[in-house]
Amino acid sequence: MINLTRIFLFVFLFHCGVLEAQNKDSTLIARIYKEALTSDYAYKNLEYLCKNLSGRLSGSPQAAASVEWTKQIMVQLGADTVYLQQTEVPHWVRGEKETARIVSQIYGTTSVNICALGGSVGTGKVGISGEAVEVTDITQLRDLGEPVIKGKIVFFNRPVDFSFMNTFKSYGSAVDQRISGPAEAAKLGAIGVVVRSVTTALDTIPHTGITRFDNVVTNIPAVAISTLDADRLSEQLKGDPQIRFYFRTTSKWLENEISYNVVGEIKGTDFPEVYLTIGGHLDSWDLGEGAHDDGAGCIQALEVLRLYRALDIKPRHTIRFVMFMDEEIAQSGANTYAQLAENRDEKHFLAIESDRGGFTPFGFSIDASQEVLNEIEKIKEYFEPYGADKFNIGFSGVDIYKLKQRGAITVGLIADSQRYFDYHHSAKDTFDKVNKRELQSGSGAIAGFVYLMDKYTPGFKSR
Amino acid sequence: MINLTRIFLFVFLFHCGVLEAQNKDSTLIARIYKEALTSDYAYKNLEYLCKNLSGRLSGSPQAAASVEWTKQIMVQLGADTVYLQQTEVPHWVRGEKETARIVSQIYGTTSVNICALGGSVGTGKVGISGEAVEVTDITQLRDLGEPVIKGKIVFFNRPVDFSFMNTFKSYGSAVDQRISGPAEAAKLGAIGVVVRSVTTALDTIPHTGITRFDNVVTNIPAVAISTLDADRLSEQLKGDPQIRFYFRTTSKWLENEISYNVVGEIKGTDFPEVYLTIGGHLDSWDLGEGAHDDGAGCIQALEVLRLYRALDIKPRHTIRFVMFMDEEIAQSGANTYAQLAENRDEKHFLAIESDRGGFTPFGFSIDASQEVLNEIEKIKEYFEPYGADKFNIGFSGVDIYKLKQRGAITVGLIADSQRYFDYHHSAKDTFDKVNKRELQSGSGAIAGFVYLMDKYTPGFKSR
Repeated sequence: MINLTRIFLFVFLFHCGVLEAQNKDSTLIARIYKEALTSDYAYKNLEYLCKNLSGRLSGSPQAAASVEWTKQIMVQLGADTVYLQQTEVPHWVRGEKETARIVSQIYGTTSVNICALGGSVGTGKVGISGEAVEVTDITQLRDLGEPVIKGKIVFFNRPVDFSFMNTFKSYGSAVDQRISGPAEAAKLGAIGVVVRSVTTALDTIPHTGITRFDNVVTNIPAVAISTLDADRLSEQLKGDPQIRFYFRTTSKWLENEISYNVVGEIKGTDFPEVYLTIGGHLDSWDLGEGAHDDGAGCIQALEVLRLYRALDIKPRHTIRFVMFMDEEIAQSGANTYAQLAENRDEKHFLAIESDRGGFTPFGFSIDASQEVLNEIEKIKEYFEPYGADKFNIGFSGVDIYKLKQRGAITVGLIADSQRYFDYHHSAKDTFDKVNKRELQSGSGAIAGFVYLMDKYTPGFKSR
Repeated sequence: MINLTRIFLFVFLFHCGVLEAQNKDSTLIARIYKEALTSDYAYKNLEYLCKNLSGRLSGSPQAAASVEWTKQIMVQLGADTVYLQQTEVPHWVRGEKETARIVSQIYGTTSVNICALGGSVGTGKVGISGEAVEVTDITQLRDLGEPVIKGKIVFFNRPVDFSFMNTFKSYGSAVDQRISGPAEAAKLGAIGVVVRSVTTALDTIPHTGITRFDNVVTNIPAVAISTLDADRLSEQLKGDPQIRFYFRTTSKWLENEISYNVVGEIKGTDFPEVYLTIGGHLDSWDLGEGAHDDGAGCIQALEVLRLYRALDIKPRHTIRFVMFMDEEIAQSGANTYAQLAENRDEKHFLAIESDRGGFTPFGFSIDASQEVLNEIEKIKEYFEPYGADKFNIGFSGVDIYKLKQRGAITVGLIADSQRYFDYHHSAKDTFDKVNKRELQSGSGAIAGFVYLMDKYTPGFKSR
């Protein structure tokens, strides 16, 4: 009987202990969210970044200035250590505002909206002109082959597939035309490429993004055309297959530049030599303000630093807040960060990135095994009251996925994707498209997730 | 042995049957979403409604025209029956553009942005002026009492509580000042009331909404002031308690008007006498275009009709698509609909309303017992791929909740709430604030939910 009573007592007390700990944790998560949702600090930081340091493409003066600015913010927020990690970055410049025209004997001449694709070379000052050949995909391009393509301007016009609820899948359904299309067309002798903007929007704004030649073929001029103008071009081609397309770009590659990742640390109390990375990428395309891509992610990382200080949370592992440089072109910042971690044989247990826009957070995309996910899902319930309780296995983020090699569980914040590709890589990615509360709740989700992982992860069996 | 084999076979075949049915259902849900996400029809309808029939307050010409327009849409979409339900609606008009000034001996005179609250009377052509008394809530107002309040202008200045993730709770934390504040102030002899706009935005735009006097007290002029102007007034009051507030409104009540609910039906194949209602409210406040509140909900209901026809879905129960009139002032359309249902002893098994903005849908707020919810949750898994899988017990919608008395399960579509109260009841509630895909996915969620409920609900034990 005595034994049984003891066992009951033990179970009871243990149960109470667990409940009390859960209670404390949910109270802390509530405090984190409250602090995030009631402070304008992050939103005002994003406004500053967007309005004063817009178009932060790697190698640009704005990118250099944003390095300095975020470093100062980290110092002001009281990080234990703040430093720069040098990295050599590519430097591509757009040059003058691009121009383009559809020239038809039937329909006359129509000006259309284009922008040079990142990494493409310019046409020269007089521009280029050629017959336009419309294709749906790279397979069709190859089927037409050199006899048809040589000397022409290839027009990739496959829209994104709108039927996915997740617009990253829509984007993925068409982005090969932009990334590989120009190089594939160049191989067949095309003189230029026009790609339908890879966007969910139907309007007159072109969307840029990287196109890759990778030195396997001569770089040729390549541009994105707005979706409405792509529809127009396609329509005119139906009535007049002899249409000529003219465009002029002055984009070019300059010498590489020296740039930096910005890193701030809060030293861990129990495991100072084990790292947890919270990041976003500081560079952005040059056409907009880089508000959603990825000013929001950077500002959210800085906000987590502020939340930790405001609520006096002391992490057990060392947290690194990292503003990665050059995600858009060559991921040189991410590569440098991963290389340094390897050189120094650093232990990384977690890395999280916000790079899907500053929209309402839905949960976490976790690049780990089902076994690890099952462990992590123990903290899922804490996010139910905030709607950030989708814990899926999936890709994390371009700047952090290589940390898997250092043992890290890498995680991407999942945000509502419906609007992202309306703005992405275009002049529309501006501060006014970011809702304060959506931005704030993303910071709350990251801070809460990191807090719980930092506290409980050491018990995860699979590590 | 033979018996056992038979049992196994039966179980196996039954299992296959269930799996096949589930498979068919998820295929149909996928077709519904695909059709919703790839058609511009609903979005263009919303644009038409917003741009041509903005400010559809009950009794207004725009409300009358929108009745006619939605009726025609229902006919075009091929509803089996389309008809109007007559209802007598209140008719309140704003009159001329309101003006207001803070007049201080110390700070000078400052113009501020206000709008008359719905249901309030005007000040007369010369306006009114009085000492401003700032209060946080109705309790504080009563504590000050008649000696302090009589002859003054009461300034309710409690902001919404931003710490809730669900902004309907934020709204609920402050809206009593607008609904009951003016009447309570009038009881104590106030000559006018200024209420801080009940919004999550910090800007210069005032937000209207109903204020209720209910004939228990003389109606006095009452206005909403923009949040930035409320901050300014409060700040100046700290430095100069003698401040006078001046405002001028010419709003008034006119005679009631005859208006209508618009109803379209698809006749049920199995239970034509049992009804399923899909609704939104056609009226809106006069200041904006009524895009999110509740143009989006109306257009989504119409889109469900289109989806049913496009996919040739034949409902077992009769579906009614209802554009309710006068949600904003007196709910006369909703009352008429419920009263007619009672008079005719109609059987209603489900009613669903979208009136929380055309934002990304998260799931369904179901006004039913836990037992009924448990049954309904059997269809929850179908919505997981689309992120609309939150099935909560909660309030449904202002226009449909009375149908509970007819036996209906009433349901509200839950949408992302972060932006709603930035726009709500203000000049900012315009078409450009609605994202096409968010609107479309709401239609998909409603159509999918209705399809599954229509198909399986008869088996729910609790009905």
